[in-house]
Amino acid sequence: MDDLKMDAKQAKALLIAFIRRRMGEAGFENLVLGLSGGVDSSLVAFLAAEAMGPEHVTAVLMPYKTSSPESTADAEAVVRATGIQSVSISITEQIDAYFGRVPDADRLRRANKMARERMSILYDQSAALKALVVGTSNKTELLLGYGTLHGDMACAFNPIGGLYKTQVRQLSAHVGVPKNIIEKPPTADLWPGQTDEAELGFQYGDVDRLLLHMVDERLTDKELAEKGYDVRFIERVRTLITRSRHKRRLPVVLTELE
Amino acid sequence: MDDLKMDAKQAKALLIAFIRRRMGEAGFENLVLGLSGGVDSSLVAFLAAEAMGPEHVTAVLMPYKTSSPESTADAEAVVRATGIQSVSISITEQIDAYFGRVPDADRLRRANKMARERMSILYDQSAALKALVVGTSNKTELLLGYGTLHGDMACAFNPIGGLYKTQVRQLSAHVGVPKNIIEKPPTADLWPGQTDEAELGFQYGDVDRLLLHMVDERLTDKELAEKGYDVRFIERVRTLITRSRHKRRLPVVLTELE
Repeated sequence: MDDLKMDAKQAKALLIAFIRRRMGEAGFENLVLGLSGGVDSSLVAFLAAEAMGPEHVTAVLMPYKTSSPESTADAEAVVRATGIQSVSISITEQIDAYFGRVPDADRLRRANKMARERMSILYDQSAALKALVVGTSNKTELLLGYGTLHGDMACAFNPIGGLYKTQVRQLSAHVGVPKNIIEKPPTADLWPGQTDEAELGFQYGDVDRLLLHMVDERLTDKELAEKGYDVRFIERVRTLITRSRHKRRLPVVLTELE
Repeated sequence: MDDLKMDAKQAKALLIAFIRRRMGEAGFENLVLGLSGGVDSSLVAFLAAEAMGPEHVTAVLMPYKTSSPESTADAEAVVRATGIQSVSISITEQIDAYFGRVPDADRLRRANKMARERMSILYDQSAALKALVVGTSNKTELLLGYGTLHGDMACAFNPIGGLYKTQVRQLSAHVGVPKNIIEKPPTADLWPGQTDEAELGFQYGDVDRLLLHMVDERLTDKELAEKGYDVRFIERVRTLITRSRHKRRLPVVLTELE
């Protein structure tokens, strides 16, 4: 785990400077973010409040009827601790209206539709508030493709896209995110009892270390196996990275090829 | 207008090859597109049907309660002429559920929410059909930012992003798009009677020629003025291009800067 350790004080200063630079370039003073009550969006709320002042930051809470009340309570605790503005808009009616018409959809399709409904609300609120949408996806999620394209991955800029989940936790402790938010099992809250790690089939601590060796240090599969990583784990993670490449790229438009 | 003239036969072959190449790379056989009944999506429907076979192409019609019945009739005529599959899913209930809760939104916010609802339906249908979403934005719209980010601009790839609106019309005539679709005033059908050209304040023929000189030939404002373009028109178009730059780029993620 030592490889993932970072200088939290320095990282915080860097991320705050990054937020201010992006806002200055775009000519905006206000930020909006989707606040789920998870550690990623909570960290971004703390950083955004410090970068721009809490009066310039609005958290949008977008529960579905099956969302856990604990998630909402955690999000509200972050709003109180940071002093940022907040608004709550349910997605239940819109989602149920659609799937009432398309009843055969599986859990994954429902989850993606919910993520995109939240994106469209967030962008609508950003228009109302003359604000930019700040992203809350971490590096682990981005590399594994564990997010919805044009959903939770959509943003004007993202200050924590360079931090692995493990590092998000370290920095969160440093900036004052409530301890129970840092320590609870990460979940996209897509259905009751869901956790990221059960769905992915591995722990964040393990995959973050593997990703560091695989992506940042560019070790080969042979070298990774020599370090003791299970061959199937290596293969699964490489596949997840390859299959999600399109989510990290712009679409190909014919003009580029001429 | 001569500058915008193209070899329609050659362009058609190029675009069909482009579609097949993208599908092959991604390992997909099926395509979905949002079919509005306008000339852009109609052209893409014709090209997609020819590239992949009509049985592999599904048009999704997504009317709102104020959408014009003529648009739907035109879309249905394209479905019949190409032999592609089609499904119709209304966005009315989802949109009205949201704006019932957020009643103060202006016309532009409503239009963007509708475009994003259509995107999320299209992506959901693409999951159901194991299909890729093919884009339908033309070069004029993309350069002027006349489209919704994470809405109608969202796609896996876009075969007509290199064609100005004027060229879309030329190619549409060549591939057999019904004449009334090519000749009717372009509209995003966002409110009754809306037309693109009234909203933009200029004609596509004029702006396409200006864009060709400004973007493709990189003429300076002075050179454009010497060609007879109104200085305010030049300035307005430059501003539209600059202000919409973020819509054509990936968001900045901190990791890129390290």
